[in-house]
Amino acid sequence: MSRLIEYEEANDEVRAVYDDIRATRKSDYINNFWKALAVHPPTLKRVWTIVKGVMAEPGALDPLTRQLIYLAVSITNGCEYCMASHAAAARALGMTDAMYAELAAIVGVANMTNRLADAFHVPVDEVFKQG
Amino acid sequence: MSRLIEYEEANDEVRAVYDDIRATRKSDYINNFWKALAVHPPTLKRVWTIVKGVMAEPGALDPLTRQLIYLAVSITNGCEYCMASHAAAARALGMTDAMYAELAAIVGVANMTNRLADAFHVPVDEVFKQG
Amino acid sequence: MSRLIEYEEANDEVRAVYDDIRATRKSDYINNFWKALAVHPPTLKRVWTIVKGVMAEPGALDPLTRQLIYLAVSITNGCEYCMASHAAAARALGMTDAMYAELAAIVGVANMTNRLADAFHVPVDEVFKQG
Amino acid sequence: MSRLIEYEEANDEVRAVYDDIRATRKSDYINNFWKALAVHPPTLKRVWTIVKGVMAEPGALDPLTRQLIYLAVSITNGCEYCMASHAAAARALGMTDAMYAELAAIVGVANMTNRLADAFHVPVDEVFKQG
Amino acid sequence: MSRLIEYEEANDEVRAVYDDIRATRKSDYINNFWKALAVHPPTLKRVWTIVKGVMAEPGALDPLTRQLIYLAVSITNGCEYCMASHAAAARALGMTDAMYAELAAIVGVANMTNRLADAFHVPVDEVFKQG
Amino acid sequence: MSRLIEYEEANDEVRAVYDDIRATRKSDYINNFWKALAVHPPTLKRVWTIVKGVMAEPGALDPLTRQLIYLAVSITNGCEYCMASHAAAARALGMTDAMYAELAAIVGVANMTNRLADAFHVPVDEVFKQG
Repeated sequence: MSRLIEYEEANDEVRAVYDDIRATRKSDYINNFWKALAVHPPTLKRVWTIVKGVMAEPGALDPLTRQLIYLAVSITNGCEYCMASHAAAARALGMTDAMYAELAAIVGVANMTNRLADAFHVPVDEVFKQG
Repeated sequence: MSRLIEYEEANDEVRAVYDDIRATRKSDYINNFWKALAVHPPTLKRVWTIVKGVMAEPGALDPLTRQLIYLAVSITNGCEYCMASHAAAARALGMTDAMYAELAAIVGVANMTNRLADAFHVPVDEVFKQG
Repeated sequence: MSRLIEYEEANDEVRAVYDDIRATRKSDYINNFWKALAVHPPTLKRVWTIVKGVMAEPGALDPLTRQLIYLAVSITNGCEYCMASHAAAARALGMTDAMYAELAAIVGVANMTNRLADAFHVPVDEVFKQG
Repeated sequence: MSRLIEYEEANDEVRAVYDDIRATRKSDYINNFWKALAVHPPTLKRVWTIVKGVMAEPGALDPLTRQLIYLAVSITNGCEYCMASHAAAARALGMTDAMYAELAAIVGVANMTNRLADAFHVPVDEVFKQG
Repeated sequence: MSRLIEYEEANDEVRAVYDDIRATRKSDYINNFWKALAVHPPTLKRVWTIVKGVMAEPGALDPLTRQLIYLAVSITNGCEYCMASHAAAARALGMTDAMYAELAAIVGVANMTNRLADAFHVPVDEVFKQG
Repeated sequence: MSRLIEYEEANDEVRAVYDDIRATRKSDYINNFWKALAVHPPTLKRVWTIVKGVMAEPGALDPLTRQLIYLAVSITNGCEYCMASHAAAARALGMTDAMYAELAAIVGVANMTNRLADAFHVPVDEVFKQG
């Protein structure tokens, strides 16, 4: 149902993005997400630009922490593809089975307490309003 | 709309939980979330037990990373109370403004690509299935 | 920000719905939800028709159970208005504080295990596939 | 992709939880959810403890109503595994096809009106604020 | 797992709805969604009535725009069936591949900025409050 | 709670984005969303770049349709800020009260049928798989 654009059949605009993905990740592998977005080159380019900026540019959070945050969102949204791809990225950066299980447990507990806070209409503490 | 149970009016079951929160956190402050749950002592006790286990027991993830994961879920769910309380907890553990902004950016990008992966029905790569 | 249409200013189409709400609920009170939808009479009429059918027609579930299910969804979605209005409806049918707290706890736990089932990619048991 | 821990290969910590699941449910069957969580024994133990407390301890809500609430959340979140397992649990407690269809209809209508309440910025009625 | 009711085995109540679907759409094809709802005729009838009203009655939005809005919601919720059926409906009304890709990109960006607005607690501008 | 960066206090990087927002929209007004993101200039710049690309570059969808899609997502997610800002943008492009009400009704119905499709495990029709 999904059409995937391989490098060989890609036009110049798509190839330029694929080349940048390879250079940024220091790997020849292009995963299916980008091959699927390539059906619409402007979307491919825009999404890659922001993902690269947010995930690969130097910043205050280390690369593994960034992937764990990405995973937490993807599990909350139940996105199969994103769970698979970002779990792989996190493992490549050192995530162990225990770390993944702890992450999943935190995601579960947060989803529980988010609803409890709503259900009990908990007012925000004054000391939390200064942040 | 929400009723908050103060220590002075709490029964023994609730006080035992409050005492454990104080001892675990090495702080006298009990935040409103627990005071609201205290209207139903079994729920207070059960929720505190799992939150303490997941957030305060030794494990593979450090305390700040745990709070960042909690925050990522709370932002995704739009839970005002949980964003406020876990941002405060994360700041106490060292989260800077820049770290929070980067976290928010990752949460935003993940919510975007989660939907793009669904919209384009992207099949999971074979290499991601072994994890 | 929201415009509410009172009975006195309503046109005949809106009044007919308001009259049916009053007759169905055996109460003169029209809550704000319907007064807000009344800015667009076809939407008011269509939404009332299905809500009345699903919530007030005879069926296999008793009225209180229906309200508890409605509340569980509204808490999961974090809808303030719907939590308030359906908590009131449930209380009128006999929901106690303890029942509400237990409901909230179940909603919390379900939101937690929903994410854990996704995070661990749990395959559906064969015995569950026959239902 | 998911690893399931059978009783025979489980360590003592996991076996103790499995034994408690069997005793609580008066059935030898351990469903896949618990076998998947067993890859991380502390998570298995913590999650089972709260699920058992919320779903199996005596309280104000009867067992079938608890399962219906659980199902309502699982449908709202689109969790396949949880829909399957809690539909099975609810059927074992007496849920008929008609009850399931009515539950699904309420979940659908609630998800609709939750968004309408937001879209029209409906203010909470004064009479609903006392609850 | 899902039971689908074909026209031949349907009772009169279900057939009346199927006949109306065919007449409204000027097509003999009944898609699986309606065949699945037909296990509970009152739900089939109620849901078809509101879907027909909202999607097929004359109004201020043209049919294609209605389908694009439906698709945007279905992608946000990750509903496979609804993405497939409403993409087909939109294509029949003229949606091109480029339009679908742009729609998906907007859905992605909106999901991102929705979370950023929450994460940064952005206050609503005064000029936006008059609408 | 949110800090808003005004043009006068902004650094050059932020001013460049503000200038581009003004030029793109042909209006001096900078809405609070951008002033809030400006606390972290790289995020401001990245988010504006993709929003401008997706919402303001020429494409297959007209500007009003793009705003309606954005609104549909924002209502589904219950994002107050985004509902307010994109309703204002849509009104400026011609959205009437009737169009907004119809949009809200479609969003409501889609959220309902999304859950019904999941609850009844409706299999995707073969004819929908070719798209």
